[in-house]
Amino acid sequence: MVRIALDLMSGDRAPEEILEGALLSKNLCQLVVIGTKSVLEKIDGVEKIEVEDFLPMDVKPMEILHRKTSSMYVGLKLVKEKLVDAFVCAGNTGALLAGATFVVGRMEGVERPALAVPVPSTNGFAILIDAGANARVRPEHLLDFAIMGLAYAKVLGKDKPKLGLLNVGEEENKGDEVTKEAYKLLKELFPDFFIGNVEGHDINAGKVDVVVADGFSGNVAMKTMEGTAKMILQTLKEKIENSGIIAKLGALLMKKVFLQLKTTLDPRTYGGAFILGIDGIVVKAHGSSDRVAIKNAIEVAVRGCKMKLVENIKEEIKRVRNSGACGGNKDSRSDRST
Amino acid sequence: MVRIALDLMSGDRAPEEILEGALLSKNLCQLVVIGTKSVLEKIDGVEKIEVEDFLPMDVKPMEILHRKTSSMYVGLKLVKEKLVDAFVCAGNTGALLAGATFVVGRMEGVERPALAVPVPSTNGFAILIDAGANARVRPEHLLDFAIMGLAYAKVLGKDKPKLGLLNVGEEENKGDEVTKEAYKLLKELFPDFFIGNVEGHDINAGKVDVVVADGFSGNVAMKTMEGTAKMILQTLKEKIENSGIIAKLGALLMKKVFLQLKTTLDPRTYGGAFILGIDGIVVKAHGSSDRVAIKNAIEVAVRGCKMKLVENIKEEIKRVRNSGACGGNKDSRSDRST
Repeated sequence: MVRIALDLMSGDRAPEEILEGALLSKNLCQLVVIGTKSVLEKIDGVEKIEVEDFLPMDVKPMEILHRKTSSMYVGLKLVKEKLVDAFVCAGNTGALLAGATFVVGRMEGVERPALAVPVPSTNGFAILIDAGANARVRPEHLLDFAIMGLAYAKVLGKDKPKLGLLNVGEEENKGDEVTKEAYKLLKELFPDFFIGNVEGHDINAGKVDVVVADGFSGNVAMKTMEGTAKMILQTLKEKIENSGIIAKLGALLMKKVFLQLKTTLDPRTYGGAFILGIDGIVVKAHGSSDRVAIKNAIEVAVRGCKMKLVENIKEEIKRVRNSGACGGNKDSRSDRST
Repeated sequence: MVRIALDLMSGDRAPEEILEGALLSKNLCQLVVIGTKSVLEKIDGVEKIEVEDFLPMDVKPMEILHRKTSSMYVGLKLVKEKLVDAFVCAGNTGALLAGATFVVGRMEGVERPALAVPVPSTNGFAILIDAGANARVRPEHLLDFAIMGLAYAKVLGKDKPKLGLLNVGEEENKGDEVTKEAYKLLKELFPDFFIGNVEGHDINAGKVDVVVADGFSGNVAMKTMEGTAKMILQTLKEKIENSGIIAKLGALLMKKVFLQLKTTLDPRTYGGAFILGIDGIVVKAHGSSDRVAIKNAIEVAVRGCKMKLVENIKEEIKRVRNSGACGGNKDSRSDRST
């Protein structure tokens, strides 16, 4: 059975909702929960690791490296030492990224780990990578993101995922030097998967399964989706409140449909985002995760382990490197590198 | 009365819907329509200018400079020569931007004209600038965008607009070198307006009136909003179709509310985007504009003329330059400039 570590102390709704999430997930895997003494007392029937420290949500990312007795650090260390198969954490994204990169360590051949997030689309979901780990990138980083995103899509059940490059227009010559060069690399290396540039309105439209982006625009896209969905649901609510009895009755009859819609749009539904490009499995649950979101994140982690996500990415990285592509070449330059 | 030129030949639904839009707008201003002979025959009661050529929607942007008998070029030339107060066009964005920059010409003190788009928000709308004219920018360009966006917001009736910088996190040190430097400039120059960094989910949330962004992430944000809104409406429709008679009845009773929601979310509702930073008023109507969208765009142009948008921006640019800020300094450098 897959062994998964869970940080009970991190997340907007920690520890209560994370504890409840752990209870819901007991049968999914061999669970190892990490928390302070008083929190651990509230749960039974799982393996427990006691820590003295934990990181607040507004911590500075690099602080993770100095707080070696924190729940997040301990979880990452368990992955590093292969004492668990994966670690699930709803804590500060920057800290978890920094910790994953420096404690667990980068995968051989990958320069920049990235955050891969499933977002809703009309045909289920699409994977957005990078959703915020690297503000600026070089073309070969985008190539690595493509390799990792495709492997992730396959783990989630897409046999022949369609790959797109996030850009400001569809044509090959759109964007800046980084996207133009990345377009060439992706076309050359993934002729069977790459469908070309995609724009913001394509992400949710079901025409693409993996969207590759620099972490700045990927993050903007991800958060804009959340904001737009929230605004629409709120506007709908207000319009119903300000309308007559007939529309109000209509809304009542549609309650079930609205609940379904809300679930589809809720980022927590999709459980967790993988930090890909590190030598182990770390799942970032949404900061506002409740018990169900935690359970979903643990399920995602279990699937990643069972489908050998890390091994698949390693093999694919090797294949692409051996094909002679420039990925990973630290000498290539671009005006966007930082 | 304000004199507005309208390109009858550009737009996905040209010339029919543009013609109808012209008819709806006859009384709003002194209208000058530009079209080929056969199209001009279909309209009466307005001033007409006959052209031989027009640009298709998929034209390469720079081609505008070589097609001097096209409807778009002629419209821009009318603005340049002050023969009209503004020009409204639903054609190819890149071509209109290039034409506005090189035919009408840049405003003194502005290096990079930008596209300013009103997007829906819970308190009406927010202005997103730049929505796609400049893929990469320097910090002082973002400062210019802020000046122009604030002036635009005032024209649209916001007395004390709240200004935000699009970024990947709220803290001052988030993002890359460009956003960090821009943060400092905006804080220094607009202490009464600048509320700090905003993230993708803040754009529609009503906490900000003007969102400043580089044209790459601004374009991604704008199009992601459109895509998410479309996905939500489609998902809602599907869920209703797949549900029982009760929910279907509910939807019927809510028809009016849904129509209102659709209107709120439709980019055509907001009429037009200004190309700001040029020495004249050019309004880009949405490519898919129908007659109502054209009328809205003409209304926006009329308001821009009456409120002296160009003059206001010029004065504000002068004020900021005289305050000793680095805006417009072509020697300052950044790794993101192209």
